[in-house]
Amino acid sequence: MTLKTLLGIDLPVIQSPMAGVQASDMAVAVSNAGGLGSLPCATFDPDAIDRELTSLTARTSKPFNVNFFCHVPPTPDPQRESAWQELLAPYYAELGLDIQAIQVGPGRAPFSHDAADILDRFRPPVVSFHFGLPSPELLARARKWGSTILSSATTVEEALWLESRGIDAIIAQGLEAGGHRGMFLSDDVTTQIGTLALVRQVVQAVKVPVIAAGGIADAHGVAAALAMGAAGVQVGTAYLLCPEASTSATHRAALKSDASRHTALTNLFTGRPARGIVNRLMRECGPMSTTAPAFPLATAAMAPLRAHGERHGSGDFSPLWAGQNTSGCREVPAADVTRMLAAEV
Amino acid sequence: MTLKTLLGIDLPVIQSPMAGVQASDMAVAVSNAGGLGSLPCATFDPDAIDRELTSLTARTSKPFNVNFFCHVPPTPDPQRESAWQELLAPYYAELGLDIQAIQVGPGRAPFSHDAADILDRFRPPVVSFHFGLPSPELLARARKWGSTILSSATTVEEALWLESRGIDAIIAQGLEAGGHRGMFLSDDVTTQIGTLALVRQVVQAVKVPVIAAGGIADAHGVAAALAMGAAGVQVGTAYLLCPEASTSATHRAALKSDASRHTALTNLFTGRPARGIVNRLMRECGPMSTTAPAFPLATAAMAPLRAHGERHGSGDFSPLWAGQNTSGCREVPAADVTRMLAAEV
Repeated sequence: MTLKTLLGIDLPVIQSPMAGVQASDMAVAVSNAGGLGSLPCATFDPDAIDRELTSLTARTSKPFNVNFFCHVPPTPDPQRESAWQELLAPYYAELGLDIQAIQVGPGRAPFSHDAADILDRFRPPVVSFHFGLPSPELLARARKWGSTILSSATTVEEALWLESRGIDAIIAQGLEAGGHRGMFLSDDVTTQIGTLALVRQVVQAVKVPVIAAGGIADAHGVAAALAMGAAGVQVGTAYLLCPEASTSATHRAALKSDASRHTALTNLFTGRPARGIVNRLMRECGPMSTTAPAFPLATAAMAPLRAHGERHGSGDFSPLWAGQNTSGCREVPAADVTRMLAAEV
Repeated sequence: MTLKTLLGIDLPVIQSPMAGVQASDMAVAVSNAGGLGSLPCATFDPDAIDRELTSLTARTSKPFNVNFFCHVPPTPDPQRESAWQELLAPYYAELGLDIQAIQVGPGRAPFSHDAADILDRFRPPVVSFHFGLPSPELLARARKWGSTILSSATTVEEALWLESRGIDAIIAQGLEAGGHRGMFLSDDVTTQIGTLALVRQVVQAVKVPVIAAGGIADAHGVAAALAMGAAGVQVGTAYLLCPEASTSATHRAALKSDASRHTALTNLFTGRPARGIVNRLMRECGPMSTTAPAFPLATAAMAPLRAHGERHGSGDFSPLWAGQNTSGCREVPAADVTRMLAAEV
């Protein structure tokens, strides 16, 4: 089954849901251009989900995707939190910020019955998950909407796990991909493999359609994914400079600079490994830290540093999410990026 | 220019030179099948190079590749060496081996005038380098043979560096690849990117033909590389079970097991990062160690542990080099693997 048939779209391109840098504007533009636009809901409360979906459905009649994280929220660990604050204290001192004033941020919430209550009214054509799947009860609610269900696999094992739970298609997220690794059966980053190796092995291992993600930035990358047997692609980084994205000025500047050539997996910003452009914090603390609190708790203590930095034009403390191929980033409408990706080569 | 035109071969497939697991038997089989067979010379002294090339040229009239490392041999550091032996001492004790009896092994030698003196008589059609390029004087000798010169790039920066020095084609070695990373402008492994991202960006950055390496295990992988604009591929892992390979029984068993699904970059076996199947030593010491002596000095203290392990059927202390896609490994002649890779899809 092709992705176009499965999802009812014209072009084999899914726009990656990118929490924090886009909402319904981007999703509408991509869906109306013939791809599958995505609404990332990880940082939205139910009101925001309602508002964005109302806006989205008013502006497109095409299929769209609603994306949720499905991590288990951790129990805060005071000892780890204090070690984390100790690690960050010199930066607070340098910026003249009060480390005692850290607020528990909204962080990222997993898919919940509260969110599903909102979605009941919208019955989204596609629902995608990151970090595995929600509880069987929650998954059943999505099934009742008639939604096509997608989730990300970062290993062959995860792909088989998802297929055995009845997922409609699998997003094979290669190591090149920007943002959070969808890994959920292991927290060992050495299990994470490149898109070329992952997609081909997942295609051989499962019967459901496979969507290639990671390192794809132009029509040649899309053609390569299809040659490997993928049914389509999911692309995020190439959309980050579009006017429909809410990517910060700091993040945009980094994407346009040579710094974008060097990304790394880091858990400093949220507690989970995610790929971003290497910045001062990642260089000085090491991108992967055993001190960072569990996802998403690391975010709270980073927030004041990040906000202060960005107010002063600095991305030293910001998550500058990007994949390993930023060559597709253009300051053009998301519809143009979508068509560029789906062009004949 | 296609790889076939550049190298005078029928199929766009280079067999990766794999020091330690193959010699002229493999190269002859691949070249006679229409690909480009490679003779890895990093572990050969001049006599062995002479012997293998004599044997190779007696058995094929097709183009072949001779491969050399071109690292700068390090000055031994007694302090690091003793820290290294301290780390390994418990394993020596467990196996009943004498850590005082460690011999300075032959290790791996870089391309040299002694080696070039032998090659003067063979004038190899293709010479490929790993870890950058040799001195201009040595490179000039290879040029005088009329050899086509290849070298590996692991980043866009390395590709531009090689192109500026007149290389004929660039092997873009993605992070999926097995064995030693060819990295030479940085020793930061976070600079290393996946094949899909690397190949496409190198193709866009340079004018010379680009050969894709890493994670390619079948004809679909080859088709994907060509779709990205690569002129051909270099494949190693898929050849490791061939009868023409001298892959050890231990290594073969690991490749055929589920363990082959989990590889990592490790510097424990030689001092430089190389991708191999995760084994006991990598798990217990961590795959990347700041204690390991500089390449290739780490090898000496590992050798007795490895030899003892392999005598007892254990790969606990062996470099089990493999890429992130072992799905192409078959116990079939190298000619069959070559044709399988070049098949229409």
